[in-house]
Amino acid sequence: MTTILDGKETTATVMDELTAEVEQLAAKGVTPGLALVLTGDDENSARYVRLKKKRAEKIGLYCEFHHLEKTTNKELVGLIEKLNKDPKIHGIMIQLPLAEGLDELKAVEAIAPEKDVDGQTPVTLGKILMGEECYLPGGVLAIMELFKRYDIDPNKKHWVIVGSSNFLSKPLAAYVMNLSSNVTQVDENCPHIAKRIKDADVISTEILKKHFVKPDMIKEGAIILDNGNVYEGKYVFGDVDPEVYEKTAAYTPVPGGTGPMLIAMLLKNTVKAASK
Amino acid sequence: MTTILDGKETTATVMDELTAEVEQLAAKGVTPGLALVLTGDDENSARYVRLKKKRAEKIGLYCEFHHLEKTTNKELVGLIEKLNKDPKIHGIMIQLPLAEGLDELKAVEAIAPEKDVDGQTPVTLGKILMGEECYLPGGVLAIMELFKRYDIDPNKKHWVIVGSSNFLSKPLAAYVMNLSSNVTQVDENCPHIAKRIKDADVISTEILKKHFVKPDMIKEGAIILDNGNVYEGKYVFGDVDPEVYEKTAAYTPVPGGTGPMLIAMLLKNTVKAASK
Repeated sequence: MTTILDGKETTATVMDELTAEVEQLAAKGVTPGLALVLTGDDENSARYVRLKKKRAEKIGLYCEFHHLEKTTNKELVGLIEKLNKDPKIHGIMIQLPLAEGLDELKAVEAIAPEKDVDGQTPVTLGKILMGEECYLPGGVLAIMELFKRYDIDPNKKHWVIVGSSNFLSKPLAAYVMNLSSNVTQVDENCPHIAKRIKDADVISTEILKKHFVKPDMIKEGAIILDNGNVYEGKYVFGDVDPEVYEKTAAYTPVPGGTGPMLIAMLLKNTVKAASK
Repeated sequence: MTTILDGKETTATVMDELTAEVEQLAAKGVTPGLALVLTGDDENSARYVRLKKKRAEKIGLYCEFHHLEKTTNKELVGLIEKLNKDPKIHGIMIQLPLAEGLDELKAVEAIAPEKDVDGQTPVTLGKILMGEECYLPGGVLAIMELFKRYDIDPNKKHWVIVGSSNFLSKPLAAYVMNLSSNVTQVDENCPHIAKRIKDADVISTEILKKHFVKPDMIKEGAIILDNGNVYEGKYVFGDVDPEVYEKTAAYTPVPGGTGPMLIAMLLKNTVKAASK
């Protein structure tokens, strides 16, 4: 029996729940506010941020989109500091990567930890490693949300996490270190990926190579969390070959797995920040 | 051929180098200042902190020992904030665990990141996870220092780290994630420790069970970093049975391995902080 971890359906449920929560907050006179910051002129990034704004507004959030096409570190940090002080804003998210020449660490460091609703600051990443309460990055929260909704215990498992981004694989590994589980983190360019994942109960991939993971590479009954998104024209493919699916206990499809949940998780953290 | 990673000898070398650096700083009118903060009435902890002070002063540092036998979160945080502003102080270290009833996260969070010379704050731990420059916790820095002094490449290896403390095993795992290496972190109570470490090129243990690791549990030619210290009267034993040693490429003995290096690494970070 294989369970499909349906990110689209779960997102719809979460969005309904959030709509109700936002209504309750409105009754208390609180409107959750989210500020989205984009640098540079990449059209795909701009489209994605506009989608975030649209979704936020759909569930009743107040949302500002600050698009700095040409900017400096000083101006960017200045904007973040202004947003930190703005009582209308409960959450701040900086779209990464930044435009060329800008200092990513300086920018994310400027976000006040209590408004860090996408888990981008060093403080938040450190708290994840320590096992302390904080806002998890969207990709990490999406995985934990799916485990919860599909009643899968993330404990007592051997996790293998392939990837090394600051927004998914490394914080996910740090989070799992605080569960009663083992975790192996493997660089996406490591020559021994196959050997490592053969041993895993849970496999999270962020390899960005179309259908890289084949059926003979995994253990029967493993859980697959496919975070690869390889675009070919208007199609998108995961790191995991769909032929793997029938060998798994549960898997996130691509498209329709963790991807659609990212925006909902950002909004969930923003509503939580506004509730405090 | 087995190499003994001699922490005592390496410490002596590091202390000599630091003495020279402190003299150079003195010529520029700078005296590195370290503040040590202890709470509660545990005599062993007090003795250890006094030893830190003695060593610091031996190489020419200015050192304050603040012993708050009975204190509150408010008083403790107030002291840290005062030390943050004190220009004589370049580094602050809080001896953990705190006395009962005190909030560890609140205390370490109060340390200014630029004075966090023992890698205790969430900001520092987050930077380690991100692969950014920062002061590594003493235990992590000790391991990297030994690798450097004995010309061992920490890259292209499969690390297995057994333990889950915030001051050693978790930050070490986070650090290794940013090398070209794989890393597996295993809880010290995991029933599959033996299986995991059999596969490792480098094994770091923080199990605190006398001679737990036996020769049949490791791979021929592995590198052993034994961070266990089990006291029996005036004797101290490691997690690793000495019978394992001849099977290794290199190992840290107990006593005389990573243990003696901890204070030197704290002082090294303090001198570095004063040089900035």
